[in-house]
Amino acid sequence: MRRIRWQVAAVATLGLALVLEALPSVLHWLRVGRRQQRRRPPRREVLFFPSQVTCTEALLQAPGEGLSGPPAGCPCSLPHGESSLSRLLSALLAARVSLELCLFAFSSPQLGRAVQLLHKRGVRIRVITDCDYMALNGSQIGLLRKAGIQVRHDQDLGYMHHKFAIVDKKVLITGSLNWTTQAIQNNRENVLIMEDEEYVRLFLEEFERIWEEFNPTKYTFFPQKKQSH
Amino acid sequence: MRRIRWQVAAVATLGLALVLEALPSVLHWLRVGRRQQRRRPPRREVLFFPSQVTCTEALLQAPGEGLSGPPAGCPCSLPHGESSLSRLLSALLAARVSLELCLFAFSSPQLGRAVQLLHKRGVRIRVITDCDYMALNGSQIGLLRKAGIQVRHDQDLGYMHHKFAIVDKKVLITGSLNWTTQAIQNNRENVLIMEDEEYVRLFLEEFERIWEEFNPTKYTFFPQKKQSH
Repeated sequence: MRRIRWQVAAVATLGLALVLEALPSVLHWLRVGRRQQRRRPPRREVLFFPSQVTCTEALLQAPGEGLSGPPAGCPCSLPHGESSLSRLLSALLAARVSLELCLFAFSSPQLGRAVQLLHKRGVRIRVITDCDYMALNGSQIGLLRKAGIQVRHDQDLGYMHHKFAIVDKKVLITGSLNWTTQAIQNNRENVLIMEDEEYVRLFLEEFERIWEEFNPTKYTFFPQKKQSH
Repeated sequence: MRRIRWQVAAVATLGLALVLEALPSVLHWLRVGRRQQRRRPPRREVLFFPSQVTCTEALLQAPGEGLSGPPAGCPCSLPHGESSLSRLLSALLAARVSLELCLFAFSSPQLGRAVQLLHKRGVRIRVITDCDYMALNGSQIGLLRKAGIQVRHDQDLGYMHHKFAIVDKKVLITGSLNWTTQAIQNNRENVLIMEDEEYVRLFLEEFERIWEEFNPTKYTFFPQKKQSH
């Protein structure tokens, strides 16, 4: 009788011990699983320029197929591989809901076509730019406005010198690059593509601040002249 | 006798169970401790400009005390609080070993003084800049060269348009801001201060690539004229 009692006690102790032993591992596994799901490494990419000149028709010609391979019949003699410009275009063309652009200079025809393509696809686009640059020959701003895209600009003494974009309120694209062919093809430039929530939030707040400040109802029609750059 | 044997077995089982139970927690604690030490959240800061005009003498006047409070007897009437410029200066003045600068335009007297202060403190400074801007009135480049700081520049058709700094090969400072008083005080600009190893490595590699490419032994003395910006 006593022997059986001891056996029961030993088996119970062993069972309890095994459960207690397994418990932290199970909890840890659950915790780590959840943490890894939350903390998927955010996208962090740097593009350096000048960009190799490549054919970007594959990205820009076919609405709805903008992210697929090179177009079957592209007749041009340019290389069809990846370049800093094509990677920038791809990052922008990934937009499905919204695109905020805050750009000092915007004259690149390819980047202009990408923005118009997104507009046609129904992406909500807002553009902030600098009033001096937007009036220059070759600026894309007039074309975007004609297409029905909302544009606001400064009337300050200073320059609206930012060069950033926010895709779907999730990806920040920012750097030294003005969106001009000169800069893309000839200058040493950098562009960061970042998914970090903190950075996206701060730049989105800056965008909303400037967007409200440049509300056209506040425009004056004889602004002061600018100082030199 | 048999009873004692069972007691010993039970106690041994319990002891073993307790050890096994504690082991994963101890291992986990050690692992997490090490991981947290490795993965201290990297510094991620964004400075937006224009910067409020504040007194920066506290940072710039006293070598060796550059990071302490405002100087006791500063007579100026400017506010003495923090500003985007003072935070940028602090980030630079934290350098103890090395400072790489890759700047299109550099004419801000305060930023020039900060770089000279670091040079006097023995920090190894290397500057890459654009050949067009460095010759303009007010450029700091000549002063830095006179002080004995190494400067290299492009002779390209394109602009060396980067605006980044790397502090102690650990902190990347990059954005839209040219280091001019006009930009600091009047423009809408952004500067990111980042400790992410990946970004620092990529920008350092870009710096070394350009540094080698702009080696003065390769300079020609009748370079081609530049296109427009």
